[in-house]
Amino acid sequence: MSDVKVVTAAMLVIGDEILSGRTKDKNIGFVADYLTGLGIDLKEVRIVADEEADIVEAVNSLRTRYTYIFTSGGIGPTHDDITADSVSVAFGVPCIQHPEAVAILEEHYASTNLELTKSRMRMTRTPQGADLIHNSVSKAPGFRIENVHVMAGVPKIMQAMMDSIAPTLESGTKMLSRTIDCPFGEGAISGPLGEIQDNHSDTLIGSYPRYESGKYSTQIVVRGRSADLVDAAAVAINNMLDGI
Amino acid sequence: MSDVKVVTAAMLVIGDEILSGRTKDKNIGFVADYLTGLGIDLKEVRIVADEEADIVEAVNSLRTRYTYIFTSGGIGPTHDDITADSVSVAFGVPCIQHPEAVAILEEHYASTNLELTKSRMRMTRTPQGADLIHNSVSKAPGFRIENVHVMAGVPKIMQAMMDSIAPTLESGTKMLSRTIDCPFGEGAISGPLGEIQDNHSDTLIGSYPRYESGKYSTQIVVRGRSADLVDAAAVAINNMLDGI
Repeated sequence: MSDVKVVTAAMLVIGDEILSGRTKDKNIGFVADYLTGLGIDLKEVRIVADEEADIVEAVNSLRTRYTYIFTSGGIGPTHDDITADSVSVAFGVPCIQHPEAVAILEEHYASTNLELTKSRMRMTRTPQGADLIHNSVSKAPGFRIENVHVMAGVPKIMQAMMDSIAPTLESGTKMLSRTIDCPFGEGAISGPLGEIQDNHSDTLIGSYPRYESGKYSTQIVVRGRSADLVDAAAVAINNMLDGI
Repeated sequence: MSDVKVVTAAMLVIGDEILSGRTKDKNIGFVADYLTGLGIDLKEVRIVADEEADIVEAVNSLRTRYTYIFTSGGIGPTHDDITADSVSVAFGVPCIQHPEAVAILEEHYASTNLELTKSRMRMTRTPQGADLIHNSVSKAPGFRIENVHVMAGVPKIMQAMMDSIAPTLESGTKMLSRTIDCPFGEGAISGPLGEIQDNHSDTLIGSYPRYESGKYSTQIVVRGRSADLVDAAAVAINNMLDGI
């Protein structure tokens, strides 16, 4: 297992609307799937309000701990879009109008009947030293500063931004996964399953109860970075289930 | 506004399956709506893996900061269910078999053809000094220690546990909310909307872009704890929109 490379990430969702329940987040599940596909381990997610102190604290606490940070939300043109300012504060750099972002918006608005107002210019702001993150859906860019990737909250735009970031990310050894459907509740298998976990300590064995129509069943998931080790644990689990 | 009472909360979702993308969380949105309905402000959410150090750190960092903490996940009978142990570590107390939980499971399994095995007995464990949280769906209880409420991850059971906790919670002054549909993108309204926010600083005005079929529109949400102040801000916004 000496060739295993582990790359980690955290996600920070920024927005009062998620915490009030008004908007149901769709970005966490997408980013979780996306990073798993790239071989990057999502280790933590936080959701915070549109409040500078909360955003600064979360960014600074996460960015030193994980390889990459991905944020969603708060980069639009309105007064409650304070992610660029807050990330600048977190890094201790000025929040500037990024020249490339200004050029992009100038070109875009010249081709429409809309004016590039002072408010729309808010969407050109990034921390000094940031690179832009482009997206194929809308013109207003996100940005990256060091290991922090700042993306839009609108799912379609966030997803396009992930596509544009993906080629720049270092990938880790992919976590492989096997799912085994178990017709029994967790209580029926937990003893032997714990023993199998002990005997296959290079894999992570999770067990996920379902409760439908008054009946429990379980999905058992084996994860690991070696196909052989994952298969060996799966065989042990299937043998155990056959014996019940 | 002197009669306003603010009660805050954080939610902690525990589970590898959410971070890997295998399971899409359904509990955060439910808890957000539920707490808003009770007049409790959800201020932060974290999702962490099934790792003791991560759970302990999150519990200890959140429980001193907010009135209430609600956790979901990790209280089943299998080896990866380590929430009771981790919360005990966070509070510096032993993890014990709760006598009342033992009695509940003994009675339950006596009425079935299942055995109350050592693994199933895992579901009776709580930090010393905890009270049980009952639920109408399954027998295995959650628990509360000080301001931390530990609930199941299966949505139906978690929801039943919230119903059983609700009467014990202190309610704050409810955050009222008015939504105004705006046919324009955020860029068209962000200047005047920011001024309205400045003039109605006892309300929180949020603006949420939508992007459908190549067209932007916006939902503007005014929130506040006084109906009069929320109404006044909504009138100002409607007047502004009529003038565009």
